[in-house]
Amino acid sequence: GVLGSGDFARSLAVRLVCSGFKVVVGSRNPKRKASLFPAAAEVTFQAEAVKKADVIFVAIFREHYSTLCDLADVLAGKILVDVSNNTEINHHKESNAEYLASLFPACTVVKGFNVVSAWTLQSGARDGNKQVLICSNNQEAKRIVAEIAQVMGFTPVDMGCMSSASEIENIPLRLLPAWKIPVFLALGLFLCFFTYNLIRQVIHPYIREQKNKLYKIPIEVVNTTLPCVSYVMLSLVYLPGVLAACSQLYYGTKYRRFPDWLDQWLQHRKQIGLLSFFCAALHAVYSLCLPMRRSHRYLLIETAVKQAVEKKMTIWVEEEVWRMEIYISVGIIALGLLSLLAITSLPSIANSLNWREFSFIQ
Amino acid sequence: GVLGSGDFARSLAVRLVCSGFKVVVGSRNPKRKASLFPAAAEVTFQAEAVKKADVIFVAIFREHYSTLCDLADVLAGKILVDVSNNTEINHHKESNAEYLASLFPACTVVKGFNVVSAWTLQSGARDGNKQVLICSNNQEAKRIVAEIAQVMGFTPVDMGCMSSASEIENIPLRLLPAWKIPVFLALGLFLCFFTYNLIRQVIHPYIREQKNKLYKIPIEVVNTTLPCVSYVMLSLVYLPGVLAACSQLYYGTKYRRFPDWLDQWLQHRKQIGLLSFFCAALHAVYSLCLPMRRSHRYLLIETAVKQAVEKKMTIWVEEEVWRMEIYISVGIIALGLLSLLAITSLPSIANSLNWREFSFIQ
Amino acid sequence: GVLGSGDFARSLAVRLVCSGFKVVVGSRNPKRKASLFPAAAEVTFQAEAVKKADVIFVAIFREHYSTLCDLADVLAGKILVDVSNNTEINHHKESNAEYLASLFPACTVVKGFNVVSAWTLQSGARDGNKQVLICSNNQEAKRIVAEIAQVMGFTPVDMGCMSSASEIENIPLRLLPAWKIPVFLALGLFLCFFTYNLIRQVIHPYIREQKNKLYKIPIEVVNTTLPCVSYVMLSLVYLPGVLAACSQLYYGTKYRRFPDWLDQWLQHRKQIGLLSFFCAALHAVYSLCLPMRRSHRYLLIETAVKQAVEKKMTIWVEEEVWRMEIYISVGIIALGLLSLLAITSLPSIANSLNWREFSFIQ
Repeated sequence: GVLGSGDFARSLAVRLVCSGFKVVVGSRNPKRKASLFPAAAEVTFQAEAVKKADVIFVAIFREHYSTLCDLADVLAGKILVDVSNNTEINHHKESNAEYLASLFPACTVVKGFNVVSAWTLQSGARDGNKQVLICSNNQEAKRIVAEIAQVMGFTPVDMGCMSSASEIENIPLRLLPAWKIPVFLALGLFLCFFTYNLIRQVIHPYIREQKNKLYKIPIEVVNTTLPCVSYVMLSLVYLPGVLAACSQLYYGTKYRRFPDWLDQWLQHRKQIGLLSFFCAALHAVYSLCLPMRRSHRYLLIETAVKQAVEKKMTIWVEEEVWRMEIYISVGIIALGLLSLLAITSLPSIANSLNWREFSFIQ
Repeated sequence: GVLGSGDFARSLAVRLVCSGFKVVVGSRNPKRKASLFPAAAEVTFQAEAVKKADVIFVAIFREHYSTLCDLADVLAGKILVDVSNNTEINHHKESNAEYLASLFPACTVVKGFNVVSAWTLQSGARDGNKQVLICSNNQEAKRIVAEIAQVMGFTPVDMGCMSSASEIENIPLRLLPAWKIPVFLALGLFLCFFTYNLIRQVIHPYIREQKNKLYKIPIEVVNTTLPCVSYVMLSLVYLPGVLAACSQLYYGTKYRRFPDWLDQWLQHRKQIGLLSFFCAALHAVYSLCLPMRRSHRYLLIETAVKQAVEKKMTIWVEEEVWRMEIYISVGIIALGLLSLLAITSLPSIANSLNWREFSFIQ
Repeated sequence: GVLGSGDFARSLAVRLVCSGFKVVVGSRNPKRKASLFPAAAEVTFQAEAVKKADVIFVAIFREHYSTLCDLADVLAGKILVDVSNNTEINHHKESNAEYLASLFPACTVVKGFNVVSAWTLQSGARDGNKQVLICSNNQEAKRIVAEIAQVMGFTPVDMGCMSSASEIENIPLRLLPAWKIPVFLALGLFLCFFTYNLIRQVIHPYIREQKNKLYKIPIEVVNTTLPCVSYVMLSLVYLPGVLAACSQLYYGTKYRRFPDWLDQWLQHRKQIGLLSFFCAALHAVYSLCLPMRRSHRYLLIETAVKQAVEKKMTIWVEEEVWRMEIYISVGIIALGLLSLLAITSLPSIANSLNWREFSFIQ
């Protein structure tokens, strides 16, 4: 059974029908709404729909839960699946599912399907996340809903008892929260270093010697900026650990909570580290592209012609050769080690390592 | 208990014995077959084996299930594990496990272990997929078989009730079905563009100016072909979404099913996109290799010598320099963004993103 | 309830309190120890703590389990969670959890939380492995402990019945055991080939022609060494499969166990293959860096100047051009294929492939 006639209710009905379930839809105005649902779904009055169904998806807004109170008698003993979402994180004191359970104590409430979009429901779980997080205080009801999710093509994940409901309801509202600060930090650092390098490599030679070096902006200036950002970000990964150790030494205990800013910082280390790796990898690609450029070719030929005209046979500078060889080989080794760190941050790799192995690699 | 004496039955017996279980094998000709099984497994007549065992692996072909009917009395109340596979997808109307359950209504049938190869069983789950998909209508029986799988070194995955059996039976027959069309599409596109570029870069100069440019085939012609393939594939990822939106606008409803060809196309978008990324990445590597080649070196030296002999001191062309700088920097950024998309298509990353985050990145 | 006052017990109490549980700590000297625990946790005598709690975390060493025997009466019927670890793999004949269960037959023992570090417990599951492996012979107790783990922010994983306990206890002692031999093998091979190439490319020209080529050590010598290591490692991946097939042909049976050394070798193939890929990828990066070096630039200009002075207009050698073009394009294709293999070894990709697909790609 599905209660409601909104977008999500209709997508749910489409998917349930496609998966071979017998679907009955409860609406306050079944005649007008019937055309919106697939033909195989029976659209009827709410009370009647509830009577015919064992598992009822409550696809209506939290604000309208109380309108179902008239149905309390027919709902008794049924499994109610709360699929609702909020518009803000922790909007209400208790989760929607717990609120529904408090309204209908005679029903078994299961939280689920809220992490799935109406589009995914309609078109089937194609790519992206196929998981449906489910929680309930009743094991049997949870199992039944999990099996329905399975048949619909999703991967049910048991999230334990009802107290997880508010956590599950917050998930669809999340938009990469852990990445916001690190990304803005990286952009800010990039801007600072870019301005500095622009002045040093382009504007200064222009003012001093009237040389037009504007062509350096898209590649060379960016390429000297990226490793600066990468270095600063990498140091920001290891700095909070040192600060935390100092704080523990100062207060003489391991069991005092860190100040909030340090705690936040410690929690963003992974993202800062990955952005540092991203900048380092981009720097490697930019550097490798340098000899491919037309400007590199022209400068090379011009030097050769100049040397040939002046009949200078050798221009070998041992010190410059060594500096470059060592710079490149240390750079490759550093990038190789950073790659290893980046790979261990993949969830499926991290899950196969125990904490000793994880800290060994780190 | 294991019924059967084929390859799979023997591997199963080996693994069960190695995992510390007491194994009894039921065969119609125990004397002749005993030598095929490990010494620790007791090989006896079918009826006797069934009597001694609580969990019985039915490792015989579906066609011979009916030969077990004589054993119906002794089998009653036991857990039967159906490990069979089919030779074709959806060969029979009902799955093997459901057919077995209909033959022995007094038994509890569990589907499982069919996704594991005889080789993996024998040698232990080393690498590759360690999952054993299990389904049954009986929770307790499912739990017992899951624990046996656990002890044998596999990862049991609960696939819900018996109706999933035909899905589980189809899995081992699958050979990258979602990749077939995209791979042939990419190969076809590659062939077309390769022929065009071959004519343009090698055959045409040869006919017109008798210049031998054959050396361009392995790298330069391939390198101009790859980005063409990548572009067309990338546009094929976003085109069906536009067509789907048009179809919805035309029919005025979101709830009409798309025509089959469009549906198929929408389902292959991920694979087409990954192949597009693969071509783009190969193009990047080929481009980076260009200055490494002997031919690049020779052309460079020859130009320099020519310039020196003619005493032309400068060959700088501002426009060409800028074209190359911008081309390379845009290419790097595009590849970086495509990499991000490719990483989010890893199952373990996709599972940690909610649908808002996934569509944000896409 | 938590029994014990060590590091782990305190971290456990901190985390339980933070997750909203009511915690009672049992200590033999509650007055002295109370200051070590968070204020919200009640610290009292062991017997009293046990009486008040339903689920009791036994955070004391295996050697002191017997000191709890006086509490046997009050412990009866409670759920005991064994969180202990050993200092050596398979130190004792039976696992700690099984030993605890044998001491208190009236209790339900659950093994769990031992794979989590005290640090992770204290600061919350941030990155790395969030899984808590749980096993028990009692389904209901296992479910309760799993829900506690869930609320604490961990991902409970059901590992089946008590016989898995010793396996779970060995996990935290593991330090990348499968990687040790392959890594030392790769280092050994690298050393051998590096010495050979050093003699050939640097020492020999110095002795023979007094030419100082020391600058070649950091990049060129390493770059000729890496593909040698990669080749030998790759052949070591496929060799044991051939030997295994020969052994099966020789003994005329598939069901004879391989000798131990071959079995070990077969089990390390994945790691050897990944190291081979790592060396090949490093070789690619080193090769791409070659034209970026100062020494490459100097040699190029010197050749050009020499040619210009001698007025030699052409230095094109068709054979050398072809050799390089083919070498590079074959190298790129080989690296592309190896990348594909490396990607399928990611656990989340491997789990989405059936064994036919996996062997097809391999």
